[in-house]
Amino acid sequence: MKNNGLNGSSSLKSLNSADVLAQKAKGASDKVAHASTEMKNKVLIRLEALLAERQDYLYAENKKDIREAEKAGLAKSLIDRLRIDDKLIREMQGSLRDVVALPDPVGDIVKTWKRPSGLLVGKMRIPIGVILIIFESRPNVTIETFSLCLKSGNCVILKGGSEAYHSNLALYRLILEALKGSGIPAEAVQFVETADRDYIYRLLKMDEYIDLIIPRGGEALIRNIVEQSRIPVLKHYKGVCHIFVDDDASLEMAYDICVNAKAQKPATCNAVETLLVHTAVAKTFLPEIAKRFKKQGVTLRGCAKTAAILKGIEKAKESDWYEEYLDLILAVKIVKDMDEAIAHIRKYGSSHTDAIITMNYKRAWQFIREVNSSLALVNASTRLNDGFQLGLGAEMGISTTKLHAFGPMGLEELTVTKFIAFGDGQLRT
Amino acid sequence: MKNNGLNGSSSLKSLNSADVLAQKAKGASDKVAHASTEMKNKVLIRLEALLAERQDYLYAENKKDIREAEKAGLAKSLIDRLRIDDKLIREMQGSLRDVVALPDPVGDIVKTWKRPSGLLVGKMRIPIGVILIIFESRPNVTIETFSLCLKSGNCVILKGGSEAYHSNLALYRLILEALKGSGIPAEAVQFVETADRDYIYRLLKMDEYIDLIIPRGGEALIRNIVEQSRIPVLKHYKGVCHIFVDDDASLEMAYDICVNAKAQKPATCNAVETLLVHTAVAKTFLPEIAKRFKKQGVTLRGCAKTAAILKGIEKAKESDWYEEYLDLILAVKIVKDMDEAIAHIRKYGSSHTDAIITMNYKRAWQFIREVNSSLALVNASTRLNDGFQLGLGAEMGISTTKLHAFGPMGLEELTVTKFIAFGDGQLRT
Repeated sequence: MKNNGLNGSSSLKSLNSADVLAQKAKGASDKVAHASTEMKNKVLIRLEALLAERQDYLYAENKKDIREAEKAGLAKSLIDRLRIDDKLIREMQGSLRDVVALPDPVGDIVKTWKRPSGLLVGKMRIPIGVILIIFESRPNVTIETFSLCLKSGNCVILKGGSEAYHSNLALYRLILEALKGSGIPAEAVQFVETADRDYIYRLLKMDEYIDLIIPRGGEALIRNIVEQSRIPVLKHYKGVCHIFVDDDASLEMAYDICVNAKAQKPATCNAVETLLVHTAVAKTFLPEIAKRFKKQGVTLRGCAKTAAILKGIEKAKESDWYEEYLDLILAVKIVKDMDEAIAHIRKYGSSHTDAIITMNYKRAWQFIREVNSSLALVNASTRLNDGFQLGLGAEMGISTTKLHAFGPMGLEELTVTKFIAFGDGQLRT
Repeated sequence: MKNNGLNGSSSLKSLNSADVLAQKAKGASDKVAHASTEMKNKVLIRLEALLAERQDYLYAENKKDIREAEKAGLAKSLIDRLRIDDKLIREMQGSLRDVVALPDPVGDIVKTWKRPSGLLVGKMRIPIGVILIIFESRPNVTIETFSLCLKSGNCVILKGGSEAYHSNLALYRLILEALKGSGIPAEAVQFVETADRDYIYRLLKMDEYIDLIIPRGGEALIRNIVEQSRIPVLKHYKGVCHIFVDDDASLEMAYDICVNAKAQKPATCNAVETLLVHTAVAKTFLPEIAKRFKKQGVTLRGCAKTAAILKGIEKAKESDWYEEYLDLILAVKIVKDMDEAIAHIRKYGSSHTDAIITMNYKRAWQFIREVNSSLALVNASTRLNDGFQLGLGAEMGISTTKLHAFGPMGLEELTVTKFIAFGDGQLRT
């Protein structure tokens, strides 16, 4: 069945099997939607134990992927992302315990109100249905994704990267084992074994059986999925995050936040990529922050005005303002006021995460209101845009799609609300 | 520019103009998103006045559509749906006043919570962005749609049916007049003048500029849009609504609710189409409800057991259970218990509106939990699934898509939430 890359041609048989797979997931969705919290937690707890019990099996299967990756000459950093070791198993176990501890959102009534007729109306959380997750490399995504979908009452179709095929399949087999005897059907989780392009494209069109697609991977992968899909896709292309240092900022706070946002983990989507500095504080702020960045190994690329203050700095080109470096590089621009900063964020930003550092009440609120990114922050690090940091618990990536869920997607974001109403004979007149 | 039907071929010029139109809407979206409630209400109040002031102009333009429709031999009922008369103008004015009176959802903070670090996190409502509405016939949809989109801070692209072209264009011109001098750019509302198929298909692919599509019309129209669109579509295909009369029902209440749900306005999507009756009450309930239905001119189509009680009744075929009659016809089935009723609703229903009539506490709650339709009701008429009836105010149709908004779409459903956070130096560690 397996096929590397998305360029194989497909037989009618494999297309039919895409239909069958999606149909099976849909068929199980009512059972999963109405599974009790206890049933769901039991499966997750059993899975946590299986990760330890079947450790040797996981390592052996993982080794197959590693060996193939080495043979294919993959970069060491990519091979490291593939590796299942003790630490990763402990991490997967920890994330399962987290999801067990999170409240089950299904059946929550989030709001009620009374109509003049006496009808009590409310909104109740229900699962979305069937979610197709397409992801690259890291095999622990298999476990995280399954646990979040199960706890929120959704069926999930897992399509991992072909470079982690054996690892993902092994984890999927443990999931099936954990489901056994739980009362939740095995069909609740589907595993796509092939990387055949036509098979995947066929899945992307099955809006009858699949309710939502969440791709997690590079921009090219996501664009291709959006292009082909007939099903709504929640995604984020990239994180071009900004910090605006206002003239009313606590500069000490600004130094700490900027260094944290850039250097704490530069390869993440919520790391800051462009620093906007109010002209009135530029001469004081820039030399000191440049010193601190230098200590962290951060290279700066500045606008002409920045370069006039920080002599010898690399000049930023127009393309730098659009850049998601994911590296120890930062673009710096001096702006005349907050309006210019917000205009810059609107033009070059990616609606991901943007922060203002200020002690000015009016500008803090204006920034919060006017910057429509998935997270708008005052006086805190952009790195906080994350399910755990914001208090949602485990998450399914960050959506920059302004529909359904915008920002980190936790358990609640994997549900939708239906209307409910309790009456005593109310009619329409 | 105008072209009847979606079958013209298109020039490169017209395709480019589709791009320009969508781009213009996107370009205006920040201004509209941050317009104050007062600015938005002023436009709506001005529009209300213009509907009266320019009445003669509207009638003259509407007459052109009526004349063309008569020439084309359209059915009288369809021509009536096109007509703008005093009553419709008063209705449009009333709906504008309603939207003025509704609270502006933009900027509402719907939830806040504190993190251990002291970071205060919340969710704030923001507009979705640019919404493309594709609708058939009734010209008042132009006014309702515009007012809901404007009040919720969204830009709107209006694509009405070609049979109402002159009427819709005239209403669009009044909208432009109302926007003049308001500070809200005219680009906030775009009017698609052509029915050229390639032009519309091009619009459906512009996910860079358009955030959401809401089609309002027949099932064929909607399926075609979903097929072609690269942009998320919120839609409802049909309303196959059910009432289950439990053996613990108040039969008096059940008679009234069933008659109301079927006969009060049978051509609507929330009218009941299938009646499910608990076998224990069938012999008492069915003869009496049949008598009442007869008075209302309702024809029944029953299962074999129903036919054994109601002699001479038309037999229901398998296809009847899927049917949205939109007429004074009702399918009737006797079921052995609520589980069979719920299984029937899952198999044949359309996730629109379903009700149980019961005085049994356990079954009422089980029905509410297990029936995942956009509205699940206890002891009330299915006809209540409507924005006004449920207390949302004016609405943009009912979504049966289990994503973003499920059920009637009011002002809140035309927004999405972003995360906001207020800190005093919080970092990621």
